[in-house]
Amino acid sequence: MTLDQSWFSEIHPATGSAFSLKLKGTLHEAQSPYQRIAVHATEAFGHLMAIDGYIMLSSRDNFLYHEMMAHPALFTHPRPKRVLIVGGGDCGTLREVLKHPDVETVIQVDIDAEVTRAAERYFPELCASNHDPRAQLRFEDGIAWVKNAEMGSYDVIIVDSTDPVGPAEGLFAEPFLRDCHRALGADGLLVQQSESPLFHLDGILLPLHRALRAAGFADTHTLHFPQCVYPSGWWTATLARKTGRVSDFREADAAAKPFATEYYNAEIHRAALATPEFMRRALAGST
Amino acid sequence: MTLDQSWFSEIHPATGSAFSLKLKGTLHEAQSPYQRIAVHATEAFGHLMAIDGYIMLSSRDNFLYHEMMAHPALFTHPRPKRVLIVGGGDCGTLREVLKHPDVETVIQVDIDAEVTRAAERYFPELCASNHDPRAQLRFEDGIAWVKNAEMGSYDVIIVDSTDPVGPAEGLFAEPFLRDCHRALGADGLLVQQSESPLFHLDGILLPLHRALRAAGFADTHTLHFPQCVYPSGWWTATLARKTGRVSDFREADAAAKPFATEYYNAEIHRAALATPEFMRRALAGST
Repeated sequence: MTLDQSWFSEIHPATGSAFSLKLKGTLHEAQSPYQRIAVHATEAFGHLMAIDGYIMLSSRDNFLYHEMMAHPALFTHPRPKRVLIVGGGDCGTLREVLKHPDVETVIQVDIDAEVTRAAERYFPELCASNHDPRAQLRFEDGIAWVKNAEMGSYDVIIVDSTDPVGPAEGLFAEPFLRDCHRALGADGLLVQQSESPLFHLDGILLPLHRALRAAGFADTHTLHFPQCVYPSGWWTATLARKTGRVSDFREADAAAKPFATEYYNAEIHRAALATPEFMRRALAGST
Repeated sequence: MTLDQSWFSEIHPATGSAFSLKLKGTLHEAQSPYQRIAVHATEAFGHLMAIDGYIMLSSRDNFLYHEMMAHPALFTHPRPKRVLIVGGGDCGTLREVLKHPDVETVIQVDIDAEVTRAAERYFPELCASNHDPRAQLRFEDGIAWVKNAEMGSYDVIIVDSTDPVGPAEGLFAEPFLRDCHRALGADGLLVQQSESPLFHLDGILLPLHRALRAAGFADTHTLHFPQCVYPSGWWTATLARKTGRVSDFREADAAAKPFATEYYNAEIHRAALATPEFMRRALAGST
């Protein structure tokens, strides 16, 4: 069976696989200084944002990714007050971070203002907290931002990036991770989206663990969650701590979280820490 | 971007989504008395079996499904010796069940011998245990088999079926589940593949929980796991026990399992029991 022009298909060439969504129409197409941004109306996934032809998010299932990029990190750091988001221009992670009443400041640094403008228009629910007085949106190069950050100025850094090709490649490399380590306070914690465990174990996940250790982080741990619209439908966030263990999180606080979620809860957090056998073996052999 | 005839695409019409694998060629196509069976060689997923155009399994990722259909159930029942598999003609679940040294008999009842013949040829690794003296392969109607089974004659029944349309529809209905309850011993446990939590919550998962309770099971619980080639990439198995709680499993035995796996371990078992917020709310409101 073939999929005609009424479908948006993202092909993952290395695995000869593709995920497709049926479209009702295209709402927005623009070339920013950095990338090509498109928003489509799908038949049953709400709106779909694609950058350079790669699916970034859909209305229907982005809650999985955004909740898992924000809450595990914030319920692992002992007292997260100062949060930096690198990337995250759709503002979905920002919204989740701002659900935590103890967070005092969140700076979001995404290089491309046009992603945020498109999100404000087509994903307004994700931008609902953009005017929270604790939030600052900066449109600058995140790598330079972290390089120039004062030592120890953040509690949590969330790297909510595109795939590690093109502009986001540097976000997976040791120099950037070393700058993050320096910019984090003594209890500091980094979380980085880290692709598919089924497709990217050797190419991205294991090198990321090694780079995080080399950058000075004391413990690293990959959390797993489903993400329908990304290659393989299975995704990860890798957490790294300057002190303590990633698996030691504030479980009682997570269980008593004072806000609503669709996916995340304390039990899901614990579950996301579980390591599949093939990954356990690979990590044991490589880090 | 369009996908041409060199791709195998499975469209999920209700959600306007599709998953595709790039093919190198077609190895086998046959119309059995029950269904159309095809085996394709893919570019990077090994062999792919499709029945009536729906993806059943690929060489690359079937370990997820087969391990999760077998090991959680077998490490939850206190002493599983007599196992019945309804469906499961590709023999992957059978192979996993036979890894448990304490299992004494496994009867696999699949209506279509031609599925097993195709698996023997194109997925020989899944059929490696078919000649284990503890295994019996029967090619008969699973619904009738369970109806005619002696009361209390199995410890675990694994319903490893296709989607609940056509021949498999009855496997999700209360009369069959009631027959399973009768065919199970006092500590008996049923596991049923139960589709995607993202796509089939209201249509399949909640009705299945209600039907299992109505059939007499004391506790039901849905386990989650990734499954790249199935719709949404996120899949479930629902377990039901006659006595005791599904979440109480033999965790120490699972941690000391005397066989190798690719995905399953005790930690993954515990993790699979975690219930996402949206499902927790839905189950609380419906069962």
